Amino acid sequence: MRRIRLRVAYDGTEYHGWQVQENGITVEQVLVEALGSLLKQKTEIIGASRTDAGVHALGNVAVFDTDSRIPPEKFALALNRYLPADVRVVYSDEVSRSFHPRYSESVKYYEYTILESPVEIPVWSRYAHHVYRPVDVERMRRAADVLIGTHDFSAFCSAGSQVKDKVRTIHGIRIEEEALAGHARYGLPGISDGRRVRIRVWGNGFLYNMVRIISGTLIEVGTGCRLAESVSAALESGERSQAGPTAPPRGLMLLGIRYVQDEEDFCRTDIRPVRKEGELGKNS
Amino acid sequence: MRRIRLRVAYDGTEYHGWQVQENGITVEQVLVEALGSLLKQKTEIIGASRTDAGVHALGNVAVFDTDSRIPPEKFALALNRYLPADVRVVYSDEVSRSFHPRYSESVKYYEYTILESPVEIPVWSRYAHHVYRPVDVERMRRAADVLIGTHDFSAFCSAGSQVKDKVRTIHGIRIEEEALAGHARYGLPGISDGRRVRIRVWGNGFLYNMVRIISGTLIEVGTGCRLAESVSAALESGERSQAGPTAPPRGLMLLGIRYVQDEEDFCRTDIRPVRKEGELGKNS
Repeated sequence: MRRIRLRVAYDGTEYHGWQVQENGITVEQVLVEALGSLLKQKTEIIGASRTDAGVHALGNVAVFDTDSRIPPEKFALALNRYLPADVRVVYSDEVSRSFHPRYSESVKYYEYTILESPVEIPVWSRYAHHVYRPVDVERMRRAADVLIGTHDFSAFCSAGSQVKDKVRTIHGIRIEEEALAGHARYGLPGISDGRRVRIRVWGNGFLYNMVRIISGTLIEVGTGCRLAESVSAALESGERSQAGPTAPPRGLMLLGIRYVQDEEDFCRTDIRPVRKEGELGKNS
Repeated sequence: MRRIRLRVAYDGTEYHGWQVQENGITVEQVLVEALGSLLKQKTEIIGASRTDAGVHALGNVAVFDTDSRIPPEKFALALNRYLPADVRVVYSDEVSRSFHPRYSESVKYYEYTILESPVEIPVWSRYAHHVYRPVDVERMRRAADVLIGTHDFSAFCSAGSQVKDKVRTIHGIRIEEEALAGHARYGLPGISDGRRVRIRVWGNGFLYNMVRIISGTLIEVGTGCRLAESVSAALESGERSQAGPTAPPRGLMLLGIRYVQDEEDFCRTDIRPVRKEGELGKNS
């Protein structure tokens, strides 16, 4: 048996999240069905991140064990023939049997996108949370910096979580902005120029809804509904009620997951060494 | 009776184009239905651009006549309550009865988006045409420049067109590129960094499929399947067969329409004067 790893990109809009459930189609389900069609036998997969309904991914990770003779790197192409257009396997490789997508040490990269515009624009807002009010990015950066490092993130975890140890390490948070050309650019009345604000967060692990709660809190800071200083107080309190709301799923994307095991492999190959992201992560 | 003008943004993915037809839902249809619900009577609309199935818009224009006392600028908000999320009225105003969205003199702005990436990524490619091979943007710019100006665009018009006079003026074509962060950015195997290439075209009018044929031709130039010089030859030939294929609709967006009549109105208000776009339009 060999263990094959898949890196999976998807538009989560039409899915009830990653994990198989009864009341709707999920990403895991369409992957298992595609594997079944390809390998002609039922094959279980283990996913790295059980993304929520409506959350997108550029690179979630899943593994399965198989006796198939298909070369590891060919699974991506082969599976895509059986997958719907909004789910793509972008890369596949073989990993050791000791590799586990959730338990192997890793750094996860997430991005939360906010669309600041006076009107919600369909082609701008499919992968973003729309806010009418201008957001102050500098205030958000200042507030975000206090979350970087190793902390008990109880205040940034949804009540439904069963996890006991709520200490996690955020290696970095970066907030970037990008101007979008609206009608004003062409001298037209209509949509003023919009702005896309992206909150990029990476760390060794995240609690249930943690990135969305961090984003919801930072959005409140950005729109002036909350003091930047209150984020530090919320973190220290450990009380969910002290942090902001859980931002909507459509704005969230799992960018990718880097495994420490891979880094060691990389060092033996020609792939460039991993930078110390923690040192680059602060905004100020 | 007053004539109300709407600027309409939509994600065209799920629509059979603008114009009402029998075999599928259209943008015009959902607008007419929303107007019917709001005004409690059947109201015809006239659209500016009959975009094809799958084509998107940031600002298509439509008008209707009404005796309603709703203030002109309130129609946008009022109609959005009855519209599906992928169609939004972003602005509404009153225009003179002499205004006609198609016959009044205007400049139309289109954008065709290409996604260059080794794999098709769902969240990158919903509003783009995916190409595997690298495109040479400088070659495309050179080829595009010969199309700028007043020409007979017969070679860039689909055979189905009933229009006799195929002379149009393209004021400008600009090609811009934007890097997209793939997995490589995080030291991950998977998606190399992708690139988004946008072809922006504006002019006084466009023939049936003209922007998509221009884009299809420029993509062939960019991927090296066609000489840049052949575009000039195709234009002179007037033969559809000499130009490239019609690029897929998902990459096309109608950015907006600027009316000469509005420019005159603008000059009387505080809105900034319109630049001479033609002078800015060339890439070289």
